[in-house]
Amino acid sequence: MVEAIPNMKAIHSRLFIPQFTLESGTTLYNVPVAYSTYGSLNAKRDNVIVICHGFSAGTQVMHWWNGMIGTHRALNPSKYFIICLNALGSPFGSASPLTAINEQPSLGPYGPAFPLATIRDDVRIHKQVLDRMDIDQIQCVIGGSMGGMAALEWAYLGAQKVRSFVSIAASARLGAWAISWNEVQRHCIASDPAYNNGHYDSHAPPIAGLMGARMAGLLTYRSRNSYEARFGRELAAYPTPRSSPCSTPESSAGSTDSEVLSEEMFDETPPFLTQTYIRYNAGKFCATFDANCYIALTHKLDTHDITRGRVGSTSRTPLADALGQLMQPGLVVGISSDILYPPQEQKDIAAGLRYGEYRVIVSDDGHDGFLLHTEELNSILMEFLDGVRDQSTILG
Amino acid sequence: MVEAIPNMKAIHSRLFIPQFTLESGTTLYNVPVAYSTYGSLNAKRDNVIVICHGFSAGTQVMHWWNGMIGTHRALNPSKYFIICLNALGSPFGSASPLTAINEQPSLGPYGPAFPLATIRDDVRIHKQVLDRMDIDQIQCVIGGSMGGMAALEWAYLGAQKVRSFVSIAASARLGAWAISWNEVQRHCIASDPAYNNGHYDSHAPPIAGLMGARMAGLLTYRSRNSYEARFGRELAAYPTPRSSPCSTPESSAGSTDSEVLSEEMFDETPPFLTQTYIRYNAGKFCATFDANCYIALTHKLDTHDITRGRVGSTSRTPLADALGQLMQPGLVVGISSDILYPPQEQKDIAAGLRYGEYRVIVSDDGHDGFLLHTEELNSILMEFLDGVRDQSTILG
Repeated sequence: MVEAIPNMKAIHSRLFIPQFTLESGTTLYNVPVAYSTYGSLNAKRDNVIVICHGFSAGTQVMHWWNGMIGTHRALNPSKYFIICLNALGSPFGSASPLTAINEQPSLGPYGPAFPLATIRDDVRIHKQVLDRMDIDQIQCVIGGSMGGMAALEWAYLGAQKVRSFVSIAASARLGAWAISWNEVQRHCIASDPAYNNGHYDSHAPPIAGLMGARMAGLLTYRSRNSYEARFGRELAAYPTPRSSPCSTPESSAGSTDSEVLSEEMFDETPPFLTQTYIRYNAGKFCATFDANCYIALTHKLDTHDITRGRVGSTSRTPLADALGQLMQPGLVVGISSDILYPPQEQKDIAAGLRYGEYRVIVSDDGHDGFLLHTEELNSILMEFLDGVRDQSTILG
Repeated sequence: MVEAIPNMKAIHSRLFIPQFTLESGTTLYNVPVAYSTYGSLNAKRDNVIVICHGFSAGTQVMHWWNGMIGTHRALNPSKYFIICLNALGSPFGSASPLTAINEQPSLGPYGPAFPLATIRDDVRIHKQVLDRMDIDQIQCVIGGSMGGMAALEWAYLGAQKVRSFVSIAASARLGAWAISWNEVQRHCIASDPAYNNGHYDSHAPPIAGLMGARMAGLLTYRSRNSYEARFGRELAAYPTPRSSPCSTPESSAGSTDSEVLSEEMFDETPPFLTQTYIRYNAGKFCATFDANCYIALTHKLDTHDITRGRVGSTSRTPLADALGQLMQPGLVVGISSDILYPPQEQKDIAAGLRYGEYRVIVSDDGHDGFLLHTEELNSILMEFLDGVRDQSTILG
């Protein structure tokens, strides 16, 4: 049993599960699971909140959800024991294409041979970590995007184990739209000759392919209006050579929309600020992410389907049938301008739940709104957590 | 003067403009302009309708707007002389990266050296073709997407020259959102080593890069709901090897959303029907399109800005100021689910026009709705053309 140390600061740990059989049937050995914790367990060990991270994030919630965590925030470490565990296939500590096969350095990293790990696999292996901490009950599982899909899967552990859940900007099952976007991004990576079917040297990764994938991804996470408001037709201060995607974007002073056709437009280099911005951001991402992990995680997303194995094949309403099996309160939040997982999806999830609540954040920020509107999310979440606690007190 | 031959059938022609100076200052010589015509000029030579094609289409309107053209359709060749001219940079007949430099075969094709040609350049050179046909007045200029941007630019020739215009699913000026999507697609092509900075052998083009660009493009032309309704999580009948993107997609009989995790998911091959569909379609496109042309046309789109040179740099409302200069009736049509050029853009264009009318087609088909909803578009267009004709009769 791992003893959680009372602490307001984050603690980053890694634990090894001796043996774990994936949904696919493949068994992994000595499986690392990375996690971060904030706050400490109470005497009854029932003040647990599980945070599920998104596609490109790791377990350090402070880094990507800063406004949500703190003494006066929804995720209050002086009240809750908050834990975020890294998904399988992610490059941030758990077993992935980057880690050694069965943790035997002599076998080298999995690379493209890393087996398909589903979101259900994540939930099962993460639960094993909680079991080792002697945690029997989770107050709430909370996540956005891929994390919001994980929150739904956690809920199927049952209302006694998972008292409530919050799923933000997520799908109940990935549809053709998101699968197709994943396919585009996999194509970008796989068609880069440097990818070499996943057998690339870590010092010569398929940067160009990963850049393309991320650039497309970044746009699907935003919206037309957010880009329009931020960049419009503003020109970059100086041309950025295509070979250096990591230069800092900078706006040119005094450029206007109505000026005569700029000389720069006739260059090969990107003249608009938005071009340097997406290149800069995708470039930053490429410096910390791995191409095989990227592909592994897109396949994970594609398998996501809460109805799988839970609903008879003759059901005409598989989604509602699967959601109706959940007995705990669930808060489902959508972002009004999300083009990747539009708010109608979250509305439908909430409608299918017995104790579902739907909230929408009206914003032009698109899917990424779940990372940006922490002020509003924080209020929504506090209200929900208070409501769940009151209900628990009444219902015992 | 080129004499138009009375004919109900399409006539496909190519004409050479001896000398043409682009907005950029570059002069081209012996510039081919390809065009198709339907119907014949009346005695007064004033029954002309100009159709402007989209990014990936050519001049054969029948091929991509079949439902719009015919004896009982809005584009009635027994009534109108309908002409569609090919944009510069497009691979379908006009001067482009594929044509010989100044039409001198010994100099070889322009390739990546083809100069930037703007939509205004298209309008000016296309007008020269009409001048040679002794056409002084155009009843209506009509186009969708890139063609809708061209329709707006045509309108600036003045109300005496262009009596009315119809701009569908288009922008008045490309914003950061569309520019960024173009940048992603250029990145896909340019990062394919086969692209070789545009100096590729026509027998070994950068297919993988062009595939990626087109796959991303295809998705931006549709919507989440259209993909969801058509494909959902349906599995492909058989795995499609990544190396043959041109195989026919086929659905597997009897697959259901709720079945247990399929074996196929663990293969490297795409298991979902939507994946084979976008690969099949992008593959078809790659067989007829050219990578340098693709890049040239995206740069053309990026330069599109009706305010350029028409509005003082101190204007706080450049769009409205530029639109307010147009004196002829303009119909502006949006598609409700268009994520690339959302309907708000078309609404804003109509609002800025003196004689603007806004119509929206309620559809889940996204941007491509302008190619698909020909029944509704046909009605809207007939009504508009009749109204304009009545008005012209009254106003003389």
